Amino acid sequence: MKTLDVITSNKGKYREYEEKLSSTFVVKMNNVHYPEIQASRLEDVVHHAFEYLEDYVPLMIDDSGLFINRLKGFPGVYSAYVMKTLGCEGILKLMEGEEDRKARFECVIGLFDDEKRLFKGICEGRISTKMRGDMGFGYDPIFIPSGYDFTFAEMETDRKNKISHRGKAMKALLDHLER
Amino acid sequence: MKTLDVITSNKGKYREYEEKLSSTFVVKMNNVHYPEIQASRLEDVVHHAFEYLEDYVPLMIDDSGLFINRLKGFPGVYSAYVMKTLGCEGILKLMEGEEDRKARFECVIGLFDDEKRLFKGICEGRISTKMRGDMGFGYDPIFIPSGYDFTFAEMETDRKNKISHRGKAMKALLDHLER
Repeated sequence: MKTLDVITSNKGKYREYEEKLSSTFVVKMNNVHYPEIQASRLEDVVHHAFEYLEDYVPLMIDDSGLFINRLKGFPGVYSAYVMKTLGCEGILKLMEGEEDRKARFECVIGLFDDEKRLFKGICEGRISTKMRGDMGFGYDPIFIPSGYDFTFAEMETDRKNKISHRGKAMKALLDHLER
Repeated sequence: MKTLDVITSNKGKYREYEEKLSSTFVVKMNNVHYPEIQASRLEDVVHHAFEYLEDYVPLMIDDSGLFINRLKGFPGVYSAYVMKTLGCEGILKLMEGEEDRKARFECVIGLFDDEKRLFKGICEGRISTKMRGDMGFGYDPIFIPSGYDFTFAEMETDRKNKISHRGKAMKALLDHLER
């Protein structure tokens, strides 16, 4: 079996990938730093990262973001930075009094093996009016997926993974590997 | 005289640089696109851009940002993106009810000639409680420089340039060229 470098510094994320991919690859965590560019699409960030990571092929990376309609897609590809600076509180403040609360989470997984492939998952939903729940991480306490009345942070991981952006991107990757 | 490529797509900015630098270089506008990385410091963005622009040496680039204390430096190196999405109104909303309104504008000019050099200018100030003035651009209507009671957007360009982050970075560059 080939060894696959999963490029991440997040152990929880790594374990999840390891579990799903270990029937296809010998999975290895690699927390090498790579530059993320300022772009408006996650796809561009991942493609640009590929260039820096050629030494580690075959490899896998991912990037996620929350895109809020009323804020023209903010925080988008800068979601991690905005979480560190403004946090969920800042997003709620920006959304105060806004009726259009539509938002979506996007995840792009990049697999760089014989060729470069992207797998995208999208989860539509809305921004809550206050933080709710203590599971998950990041923007989970303020994101309510479409068709539900509770936030990602109020959902068990297994249940969330079935409808989440990352769960869907992962499924697309696994479907590809099975083919 | 050497030809200097000023890397920018902003004609107003270009004309200003041309005026100041034409006694030292034959100045040329070059709006080639280069990737900006996600980083916390402008210096890192400029250094990273240098790598992409080696074909155009000698060249000059600049990058600016507004760093707000209470928001942990937000919007910082992402100021241009945040201006396009949240705008001044979004910043004012985030700062509603905040007593600590300290902020600073930073500008880093990068000159890549025989060697790579950075020139930095900082302008300390505070965020106003509402937009004022119609001169300037970007965050000028909500930034009040220290020692003044009006915003950058209420100041004539010449006056603003004497105290602004970009004016100071430019002065540092000119001092270097005269040496």
